[in-house]
Amino acid sequence: MSSHIVRPVVREMQGYLPGEQPAEGERIVKLNTNENPYSPSERVTAAIAGISAETLRRYPNPTADGFRDAAAKLHGVSRQHIIAGNGSDDILTIATRCFVSPGGRIAFPEPTYTLYTVLAKLEEAKTAAVAWEADWALPIEGLLAAGADAIYLANPNAPSGTFVPPLKVAELARKFDGLLLVDEAYVDFADDNCLPLVQQFGNVLVTRSLSKAYSLAGLRFGYAIGNPALIAQMMKVKDSYNCDAVSILAATAALEDQTYARWTWENVKQERARVSVELTQMGWAVLPSQANFVLAAVPGGRAKEMYQGLKSQGILVRYFDLPGLADKLRITIGQSNENNALLAGIKMLAAAGKAA
Amino acid sequence: MSSHIVRPVVREMQGYLPGEQPAEGERIVKLNTNENPYSPSERVTAAIAGISAETLRRYPNPTADGFRDAAAKLHGVSRQHIIAGNGSDDILTIATRCFVSPGGRIAFPEPTYTLYTVLAKLEEAKTAAVAWEADWALPIEGLLAAGADAIYLANPNAPSGTFVPPLKVAELARKFDGLLLVDEAYVDFADDNCLPLVQQFGNVLVTRSLSKAYSLAGLRFGYAIGNPALIAQMMKVKDSYNCDAVSILAATAALEDQTYARWTWENVKQERARVSVELTQMGWAVLPSQANFVLAAVPGGRAKEMYQGLKSQGILVRYFDLPGLADKLRITIGQSNENNALLAGIKMLAAAGKAA
Repeated sequence: MSSHIVRPVVREMQGYLPGEQPAEGERIVKLNTNENPYSPSERVTAAIAGISAETLRRYPNPTADGFRDAAAKLHGVSRQHIIAGNGSDDILTIATRCFVSPGGRIAFPEPTYTLYTVLAKLEEAKTAAVAWEADWALPIEGLLAAGADAIYLANPNAPSGTFVPPLKVAELARKFDGLLLVDEAYVDFADDNCLPLVQQFGNVLVTRSLSKAYSLAGLRFGYAIGNPALIAQMMKVKDSYNCDAVSILAATAALEDQTYARWTWENVKQERARVSVELTQMGWAVLPSQANFVLAAVPGGRAKEMYQGLKSQGILVRYFDLPGLADKLRITIGQSNENNALLAGIKMLAAAGKAA
Repeated sequence: MSSHIVRPVVREMQGYLPGEQPAEGERIVKLNTNENPYSPSERVTAAIAGISAETLRRYPNPTADGFRDAAAKLHGVSRQHIIAGNGSDDILTIATRCFVSPGGRIAFPEPTYTLYTVLAKLEEAKTAAVAWEADWALPIEGLLAAGADAIYLANPNAPSGTFVPPLKVAELARKFDGLLLVDEAYVDFADDNCLPLVQQFGNVLVTRSLSKAYSLAGLRFGYAIGNPALIAQMMKVKDSYNCDAVSILAATAALEDQTYARWTWENVKQERARVSVELTQMGWAVLPSQANFVLAAVPGGRAKEMYQGLKSQGILVRYFDLPGLADKLRITIGQSNENNALLAGIKMLAAAGKAA
């Protein structure tokens, strides 16, 4: 193959590196990719078991209207406020292709979800990475000064887990002339959210994921809520049949079992509080998290050693060799026994470190 | 919403209009969207019924390696020759974003699959639509003269169903300096295919779909076969987890049941021959088809009236109000009894027309 066949921007790109995925059945405590530690609702597995051959044979509803109606009911909006996607990543791709031209610019606080930079590159758009203010406060003036076509805000943020109050996001929406995308992939583990802003501002798009909140990372389902005028434009950009018939039925069943989903969120939040306290007592600097993970600085900055030590015990957490993150670990909140294994593993390593 | 938020190229675009999809259970003979008339393999429904909650909870394998291995075995290539996608449309989107820059150009014979134009627009690339030569022969010189970065060739072509012999495609691949994408969504109903060209030419990418050949339009699964150097670049462009865990398992099961799939193809081919003969006897001009549909000119050019007359009888076929197509109908080959209903409906309408 002659390399000129490939777009220069793609040729020079690095591929995305997902977190390690051990084979199913490996005896691993897996706290590295922010999955919900609880199984999906039994209504989901029942919906999948009930899929007919005819549903598989035919093209699905192109706009996933069954799911859109369930989401509209849940959020108190209309079907026209909702677009469904093959994971929240598909929604972010659609939004970028809909609202950002080649040569345009996306601004975001930094550090954040690394996909935003990849999406900008693919669009041949520029990025403006604006440092968070002290205590992970929203850098409103810096974002506005970037002259961007769109601002992407992960809230709660990844990988910090920190949360910007909706009043601050509203201030940004009011002052900004372009699209404000609020990526709420983790918001169901938070105390508040920015959904009401969609009704107040025509330039706010809120994205959601079923991967974490509904224990369905394997299913690939996400959606966005926004002004119907925004959603109608995004519909033109998405692939004709971007959601499959199985995932539409399964995602609808998941959304309709709010009681179960909320139970998983409450458990995660309780365990998050416990893990945060225990890590702090062991000398870790834990950021206040509103997500289903915590980002915490390891005593002495020895994050890489801690990551490797835990891995050798069969405990996976996430280490980012990036500026501002290399002294920290991102730890997904697991079930109680998984978190106990983590905390015990850390204690063992700390004791060994002192003995050495 | 201020309209300046939306990319001009999107604002001015028409959305894609999928074929009509009646609700499941409606008593309709549905020959308008090229689904396979037979159910998917029982191995597929068994695979889906066996999906575990844990498979749904966790992120899937990001590159669908289980499926890639099955496809590699089937086609006698390596895993590195294969990329999987959320439908063949996802693969076409990935290829366009990987190989065509904004300002670049895609050439294709015309008429063909209308998605190619949409993909070029989204990429802010130009298109060169080169008219087919007489009898739907490949316009090699015209395509080469277009100065394109990529040539997209649907083979069998949609909506004509006609087929370009692989020797002609090889001639184009040899003379062309850019990417030659051969869209083989319908090729399992043809007598030949262009897969061997992947081993001969580093610039040929062949795409396949499970929607038609494996009766899985509802599942959204497609893949491409190409030189590993091409595939590695496409991997950087795709969404991180573009295929879900359910569809990976189901698609793998479908591909592994070649005996069943081939039985459906043979039945469709026999019925295609019968329908073509009977339509010809009724005065229709039927193009020689290698796909699971036929494109045929209605006597007197009264295609729209025929479409409406059949629809009023509960028989759906596809009518395109486009230059060169407005006198024709595209009819999906159904099961024998569905084709009988179609042919009887046409006879009734023809008799009524003569009586009027």
